[in-house]
Amino acid sequence: MKTPHILLTNDDGIFAPGLYELYLQIKRIGRVSVVAPDSERSAVGHAITISDPLRVMPFEKMGELFGYAVNGTPADCVKIAYFALLDEKPDLVISGINYGSNSGINIIYSGTVSAATEGTILGIPSFAISLTTFKDADFSYAAKFAARLAPLVLQRGLPKGTFLNVNVPNVPEKDIRGVAITRMGNAQYEDKYDRRIDPRNRVYYWLTGSRIEQQTGIDVDDGATGNNLVSITPVHYDMTNYKCLEEIAGWGIKA
Amino acid sequence: MKTPHILLTNDDGIFAPGLYELYLQIKRIGRVSVVAPDSERSAVGHAITISDPLRVMPFEKMGELFGYAVNGTPADCVKIAYFALLDEKPDLVISGINYGSNSGINIIYSGTVSAATEGTILGIPSFAISLTTFKDADFSYAAKFAARLAPLVLQRGLPKGTFLNVNVPNVPEKDIRGVAITRMGNAQYEDKYDRRIDPRNRVYYWLTGSRIEQQTGIDVDDGATGNNLVSITPVHYDMTNYKCLEEIAGWGIKA
Repeated sequence: MKTPHILLTNDDGIFAPGLYELYLQIKRIGRVSVVAPDSERSAVGHAITISDPLRVMPFEKMGELFGYAVNGTPADCVKIAYFALLDEKPDLVISGINYGSNSGINIIYSGTVSAATEGTILGIPSFAISLTTFKDADFSYAAKFAARLAPLVLQRGLPKGTFLNVNVPNVPEKDIRGVAITRMGNAQYEDKYDRRIDPRNRVYYWLTGSRIEQQTGIDVDDGATGNNLVSITPVHYDMTNYKCLEEIAGWGIKA
Repeated sequence: MKTPHILLTNDDGIFAPGLYELYLQIKRIGRVSVVAPDSERSAVGHAITISDPLRVMPFEKMGELFGYAVNGTPADCVKIAYFALLDEKPDLVISGINYGSNSGINIIYSGTVSAATEGTILGIPSFAISLTTFKDADFSYAAKFAARLAPLVLQRGLPKGTFLNVNVPNVPEKDIRGVAITRMGNAQYEDKYDRRIDPRNRVYYWLTGSRIEQQTGIDVDDGATGNNLVSITPVHYDMTNYKCLEEIAGWGIKA
């Protein structure tokens, strides 16, 4: 079997330690290309850049070429890697390791997840991986887990239009209790906007918020990680609600 | 029944004629609030602005206050309207009328659709509406259709977590053949990046592309509009691929 070619990206930017730890583990199992945003692009959802030019800059680390920094979103990075930068198509896309979980409806807002979506749209098996913390992050176990999951995904492939969204608890490896295959939960944020006055006396607003509705069942992403299980959610991008096609048809909407 | 309060937004920006035509029709059936991006925000997906402040400016049209312009994305507009700007919660969110269809995988990239997603996350019945053309747009029929669909949605409600994605053919009203309840199709773009040199001799890339894989069945969004039917796709934001939970569990992934 030929050495797999694995594309890494993220939304925390090419400087992020989670990406570097992932890189160190993944290069043990394949040829790695890194194409990532030149700065943090969290909460960009599945944005792509169509009205502006994209720039690509080589990015070094420890005296070596580490990858390419793009002034775009995670989805842009996957697209431009695939269509313009890489000499051969990747066999796998891994996005992460994200600083903070991507669970529940947050996956809709997540740039990390959108890169896996983009890989999937391009027909490349993909997964997103996130660490469930915003402080004292230790990416070492998550990176090792990614390097163990990658060959499995390469070997088995994924169902059409589907990728894996992985969330890893931020606990020492010895405290990890196993893996749960989960569904996307309902964890939501209670949003607020701070109304403030700037130095020139103009009003501005800043989004803030706190998480509500904690999930507890281990069949749900947040519930699993809360119980020290690695959560793996199969996610697909066909958003049709097939169950209610008939119901809406029953409305008899006239043109 | 109290007069419904309807929030309008879009991704083409508050200046867009599609929004104004929608406004003129919708204000015949309810109290209308307009909160829209201050400039075009196409292809922003479900981006939200968390690292920067948002500004809100009143926007007049024909000597009247038309609505509020926000320096953010369509999802930002819905969020800030709901949490900070409106004096009462809207009963319905309508996003559009978009210049160009939002069908197939394009709904993942669409700012217009993301505003309907955001309304849905906030528990407000929502729909997105788009006109399938990029030139010679005539929004008049689409606007009238929106004003006919709105009371139906208000009256019946929508299944939890689900909104309607409406695409209207750009043909005269007399040529519209009916309504089809559809699924999200597979229409994709064959993307390319133009590699160019800027005036300072630096390389840049610009995304370009053309649509491939035309849909023909009228059970699919693009197929319906191609046959002069108004396409209505029920879309939900739970992206779990339930069908393959078992398959992935069968892999026996070890932590």
